[in-house]
Amino acid sequence: MKIVALAGGIGGARFLRGLRAAAPEAEITVIGNTGDDISLFGLRVCPDLDTVMYTLGGGIDEEQGWGRAAETFTVKEELAAYGVGPGWFGLGDRDFATHIVRTQMLAAGYPLSAVTEALCDRWKPGVRLLPMTDDQVETHVVIEDDQGRRAVHFQEWWVRLRASVPALSIAAVGAEESKPAPGVVEAVDAADVVLFPPSNPVVSIGTILAVPGIRDAVAKKTIVGVSPIIGDAPVRGMADACLTAIGVETSARAVAELYGLGLLDGWLVDDADADVRVEGIEVRARPLLMSDPDATAAIARAALDLALELKREEDAQ
Amino acid sequence: MKIVALAGGIGGARFLRGLRAAAPEAEITVIGNTGDDISLFGLRVCPDLDTVMYTLGGGIDEEQGWGRAAETFTVKEELAAYGVGPGWFGLGDRDFATHIVRTQMLAAGYPLSAVTEALCDRWKPGVRLLPMTDDQVETHVVIEDDQGRRAVHFQEWWVRLRASVPALSIAAVGAEESKPAPGVVEAVDAADVVLFPPSNPVVSIGTILAVPGIRDAVAKKTIVGVSPIIGDAPVRGMADACLTAIGVETSARAVAELYGLGLLDGWLVDDADADVRVEGIEVRARPLLMSDPDATAAIARAALDLALELKREEDAQ
Repeated sequence: MKIVALAGGIGGARFLRGLRAAAPEAEITVIGNTGDDISLFGLRVCPDLDTVMYTLGGGIDEEQGWGRAAETFTVKEELAAYGVGPGWFGLGDRDFATHIVRTQMLAAGYPLSAVTEALCDRWKPGVRLLPMTDDQVETHVVIEDDQGRRAVHFQEWWVRLRASVPALSIAAVGAEESKPAPGVVEAVDAADVVLFPPSNPVVSIGTILAVPGIRDAVAKKTIVGVSPIIGDAPVRGMADACLTAIGVETSARAVAELYGLGLLDGWLVDDADADVRVEGIEVRARPLLMSDPDATAAIARAALDLALELKREEDAQ
Repeated sequence: MKIVALAGGIGGARFLRGLRAAAPEAEITVIGNTGDDISLFGLRVCPDLDTVMYTLGGGIDEEQGWGRAAETFTVKEELAAYGVGPGWFGLGDRDFATHIVRTQMLAAGYPLSAVTEALCDRWKPGVRLLPMTDDQVETHVVIEDDQGRRAVHFQEWWVRLRASVPALSIAAVGAEESKPAPGVVEAVDAADVVLFPPSNPVVSIGTILAVPGIRDAVAKKTIVGVSPIIGDAPVRGMADACLTAIGVETSARAVAELYGLGLLDGWLVDDADADVRVEGIEVRARPLLMSDPDATAAIARAALDLALELKREEDAQ
């Protein structure tokens, strides 16, 4: 069985770990969001790809959900001693090595997809991890504060400001001119089903779908998504701030409608949202809190089962 | 009083610390060797400049003579886990931060001299530290081993091979086309005296003098050097391997002759070499082992006193 999953950071990575446990024989290709990639200290940092790689590779800081376990921060402290920032982005010593390797390979001319493959040679995540694109796409957020109205990098809004300033708009700069990374469209074409983990529907899944060619490719497939919203709040993170920015209500129903007909075939919502109905989409309710690996695997299994069921129905028609 | 000193790494740095202690009121400009600079992991490493900066700034590993005190090696271990080398060059986590800042500034278009000044803003070495040039000059060594005859970077010969393979020749690649960094010639012109610390006469002092314009500028000044050779062995390091490569005997006399007439006015040798005579050069003998900071300050004071004495004589003529 071949599965393609789109994924952002922490929530996506945890779901994928559950999926790998739930379907150990499946060939899983992950299309990772690179819109929140950022250059810091001259090094290229890919937070979502790394979170997936570290989580599935056993190197993640479990408590925090991102960054390396047993991390130290000597390099960052030394950079601060030189007066070099930003200090608000948490880069540990172990993590720095990843960015040093990546930056060196990019400078040598390797595309990000080849770099990601090389990094995964070490981590052996048990999935094929592809960046959505080898081109540079950066999510920018327009905010307005005492410095006036301006666009900042997504990470500045998300990490430095903790999304405390409302986003007036969110744009994936460069997405329109970008191409899917090698293997992305081929993996989708070959997939039995496509899954949307409970990642951020705007700045993770939405950004991946903004790469021309990816939306069209996945639209041909049976797609099941897992709602990142339970009741009126994100399962984790600050997805509500992103939904508000694009004028979408923070609810399981509204996110399903955002993904839209022609894309989603099935939608897994939490029991709290059991009354949600979306025309043309099969909605199923179950507990969606990824409270531990077993619970997460059960959610992934339910998503996969629903996708396979819907695919059989489609194939039968 | 204005003093200019040329300097390589450990020996030069220790001498300079002694000089600063011996002449606390003097304005000292250090022209540092950059011929052993190397790019590692995509980062620009300047071993000699950093050794001077760390030593005079109080950050050096005193035992080792290079690298940072209280150093850790997490980044390097992680790079090795990615299969990324070289492992033979000892870069610690604290040290990495220096190279990250330097590389980022160089990439932003700042010349090495401006970068060095920015790094020294933190370390406050109490001297003005200038790279010999902002241009890239790399010392290469021709060796012959079971892989055949080939040129390797100086650091590969010096650090990886520990100079165990004879150097057939040594070349400062790029030196001929290089220009002195801003301020170098001006500092020499304004100097009362010029000192050559007991640095490597071939790959440190020799490389600095190979930058067109520097030799001519210093030649106009009263110059006193401190012999890096005691008896038939280097005070520290493997200068003998470099001298042999260029066909020069390992002796205090041969090094003085290498620097040559028209350059050296005075030459400080160890008591063990009290019988050394070099025509046209005032040779003085005294203990030259830089065994502790006080002994080193006394050596620096003796070099400075000899230089001032010879300058007075010249001025009187």
